[in-house]
Formats: sequence, structure tokens, C-alpha cells
Amino acid sequence: MRLATIRTATGLRAVRVDGDSAVETGESDVRALLERPDWADHAARADGPVHDAAGLDHAPLVPAPEKIICIGLNYRDHVQEMGNELPAHPTIFGKFAPSLIGARDEIELPAESEKVDWEVELTLVIGRSVRHADEQTARAAIAGYTVLNDVSMRDYQNRTKQFLQGKTWEHSTPLGPELVTPDELPADPADATTALRIHSALGGEVMQDSTTDQLVFSPVDLVVYLSTIVTLNPGDVIATGTPAGVGHARTPPRYLTDGAEIVTAVQGVGECRNICRAVR
Amino acid sequence: MRLATIRTATGLRAVRVDGDSAVETGESDVRALLERPDWADHAARADGPVHDAAGLDHAPLVPAPEKIICIGLNYRDHVQEMGNELPAHPTIFGKFAPSLIGARDEIELPAESEKVDWEVELTLVIGRSVRHADEQTARAAIAGYTVLNDVSMRDYQNRTKQFLQGKTWEHSTPLGPELVTPDELPADPADATTALRIHSALGGEVMQDSTTDQLVFSPVDLVVYLSTIVTLNPGDVIATGTPAGVGHARTPPRYLTDGAEIVTAVQGVGECRNICRAVR
Repeated sequence: MRLATIRTATGLRAVRVDGDSAVETGESDVRALLERPDWADHAARADGPVHDAAGLDHAPLVPAPEKIICIGLNYRDHVQEMGNELPAHPTIFGKFAPSLIGARDEIELPAESEKVDWEVELTLVIGRSVRHADEQTARAAIAGYTVLNDVSMRDYQNRTKQFLQGKTWEHSTPLGPELVTPDELPADPADATTALRIHSALGGEVMQDSTTDQLVFSPVDLVVYLSTIVTLNPGDVIATGTPAGVGHARTPPRYLTDGAEIVTAVQGVGECRNICRAVR
Repeated sequence: MRLATIRTATGLRAVRVDGDSAVETGESDVRALLERPDWADHAARADGPVHDAAGLDHAPLVPAPEKIICIGLNYRDHVQEMGNELPAHPTIFGKFAPSLIGARDEIELPAESEKVDWEVELTLVIGRSVRHADEQTARAAIAGYTVLNDVSMRDYQNRTKQFLQGKTWEHSTPLGPELVTPDELPADPADATTALRIHSALGGEVMQDSTTDQLVFSPVDLVVYLSTIVTLNPGDVIATGTPAGVGHARTPPRYLTDGAEIVTAVQGVGECRNICRAVR
């Protein structure tokens, strides 16, 4: 099953996407849908107003999550690119909801930053409240997968040791377009035999190109770890980190510029395709 | 004016606290109140059900803020205690809402951490949406001040370079008890002549004791800086950092233990008084 949050003339709507059409579920967005204990059955049976899938206006998949949790240094190839050793524990930081945009929206390039970079990330969305999860509970708490482009203002990110101020600029972070339930994917994306291609392309030129078996901490590992600290709730977004090939680590460095198109994609999950736009 | 969010038999309520009594404003919590453009007039005129101020059950002052923004290394004395140089830019990290507790609630000490520490912080709450604020707009966007105890699991905080996993444990962070509007305070708390005493005490023993003119970046500075990055919205919480005297920096180190009482207080603003309780 594929779910999305779309903008309509009368506000946001959660929809189930069935090939060429999208059917409203009755909730205003995917978080509200996932907060129903029966969300999977409810969404599968939904028969509300129907939209043409080709013309959907995607809002951020979860417009206002309680938590947006990002993982750093979690691809073996990216860890090596940045000159770091493989970590014993996940590196964790946050974003705030106003940073989110839809999968086809424009990325705002603020006048204050000259180093706006891309990071394609396999991202999971929580579908069931969970604390102190074991592996089985963690797996069951994952509603599905999506794509997040963890756009990063590297100059602000590196002003201090804490990443947040480079990670949470207004209208910078594409999330979506769809939540893809695990049964739609071959198997665990962190397993070598069923890994998914993950890549980004700037103006058609491939920048990042890896597979999800390069993850140091898998989605299930992360739910176990994070739920030790805090209850994960329906609609929470966990971006699992990015592979090698970001602009800041290139020689010479590359950054996003006004009018450029950045595509971030995970095989079988979907892609964000965003034009960058200089503001103010 | 002093505002609070209290628990009643029928749910949360925002109240105006007038000495011995507390008057309901009609909103469910202080965030919902601050989202009214006329919140100050509305709260001043409120004449809902009245409660005895002595018996109030304080919820977190803002139970579910859009953003909880914390500033690190922002007191001259604490920066020196930690062996760092005065910063050119604020250090910024976040917390998630489930970490918050009321000003008299128990702090949960998780079995996984052996190094739970305290940090008293002068904290501001936003009362008006603001982006790209200048000094005057920033000052007007501050609804008032409160106290936050930025309880920190130092072992988790130091597992990686990013602080978040040591800062956002469930039910760990007292916030409140009241929002105190700026007219109740002598003047700008960051000015030397009108600075406020800020202190913490563990089991009656003073641990931190400083004044708010030790702030490197003042509340107004922080609103200007943060609003460059993202729109600040009503109910957003900004904790301005902690002075010297935290347990982790002591010789020998001191930490919170089961049954201990930790008091965190800012002169004229209020105090959190919390018992620590080992869980699980």
C-alpha cells in the first residue's frame, strides 16, 4: 500500500495511491491516519473522493510530526568519505517541522548560506507507539518507508559542533512523496540480498549512488535504540542517514544553486524532485 | 501577568495566576492561549472558573511546543568550567516534547543511564510568529520567561558529538511553573544592572549560582539569530543555556539519584522543584 498527504482546494487530505488514482481515507494527513490503531485496514478499505494520481499536489508526507529524527554517519561509504571511523552508537540530531516541504516543492536557498547541500535518505515512519522495543516490536512499529532529502546549510552546520542550525532551515527539506508499506518492498532493505539502490542527481548528473545494505544501523536497529530513550509515536519520521557523494565532500565542492533540480530517490520507495529557489 | 497550564479532572487548562487564585482563560494550555493574536488582553480579562493557587497541579508550561530549542555554552562561567573559549555563534540543539514534565513532577531516572545531571536555564516562550527579526521585533516576540531544567544523561550525551540523545529522555525535563510576562521583571535580564539570580540546589545544597548577565547571547540576540533560520511560532520554547556548577563538571562528579530533590530557580521568574525517581 502507498499513502500520501495531498493539498486540495479545501485543505490537506490523506490518500491511498492505487496506480493512476488516489482515494481519500477521511483523515487530513498521514499522521492523523497512522494515529488510528486500525490504520492499515482503514486505509485499505477507504473509498472516499478519488483524484487523478498524475495531478497530485504533495504536501510533506507528514506535515507536522511530533519528532523528526535524523541519523548521521550511518553509511559505511559516507563515513569513509568524511574521514571517520565506523561508529559504536548512532549519531542523532533533529529537525523542526517548518523545515519540511513536499516532494515536488521548491527548496528555499536562503541568502545567508552559500553552502546548501543535498543528502538522500531512506526514511521510515512510525505507525504504532513503542518504547523499549525489542527487534520484533521495532519491526512491527515501522509503518513504512519514504524519502527525505536532508538539505544542509554546511556553513551553518559547521559554525558549532551541533548540527541543528544547518539542518532546520525553513522550507528546505523534501519529505515524500509516499509512505510505502513494508509488504511492497522485497524484504529488509538493510539486508545485502534485498538492498535497495539509493541515489541523488543534480541537474541529471548522478551525485550519490549506493545501496541500503551500506547502513551501519538498520531501520530496526534505530527503532530499538531510539525507543530506549523516548516513546516513538505514529507519524514520527526517522531519516536513516546518507551515503557518499554529498556536495561538500567533493573536490571541488558542489552546492545547490538557484534553478537547479535535485532528485533524491530510493528504489521501490519513490523520489523527491525539487527545484532550488533563491529567496530574499 | 503570570500564566500556567494546569491539570484538572477534565483535562488541561490555561490559567492566569493572581496571587492566591488561578483563573481559567478558556484555552487548554498556554500554547493555545499564545496562538490568539489578542492573548495578552484575553488573558488579562479572563474570568473563567477559579482554582486555589496553592493546590495547582502544573503540567509542562507548554505541553507540546512546535519547537524546543536549547542553547549550549552560553554562560561565561560555564564555558570556562567546561574548558572552552567564548563562542562566536550560539550552539543550538533540540529536545522533543515527550521529554517535558511539570514543575513539580518526578524526573524519571532511566536504568540505562548512570550520569543524569541538572542544568538550570532561564527560558523564554514565543508569543508572536517571527522571521528575520530585528532587535525590536525580537523583543516584542517574547511572551515571557520561565524555567527549564535541561536534565542531561551525560553518558548518552557523550556517546557521539551530537548532544540530542542525552537531552531528550522521556519525562526528564521540568518546564515551568509559570510564564512571567516581561513587565513583571525589572528590565532586560541580560543587562548587568537588572540581572536575575539563577541557581540550582540538590537536596538543599546550592550547586549552580550565577546571574543572567553572564549570558553570552541574550534572549533578544537568540530570537534574532534563530529567526534567521526558521519562523518562531507562539509557544516555542527557547532555553538559553546553563551557568557553571553542573554535576558532571564537579570533582568528584555528582549526579541525580533516586529520591533526591533538585530545585532550579530564576529570581522573579519561578522555580521547578522535582523529586528524582528511578524507573524500570
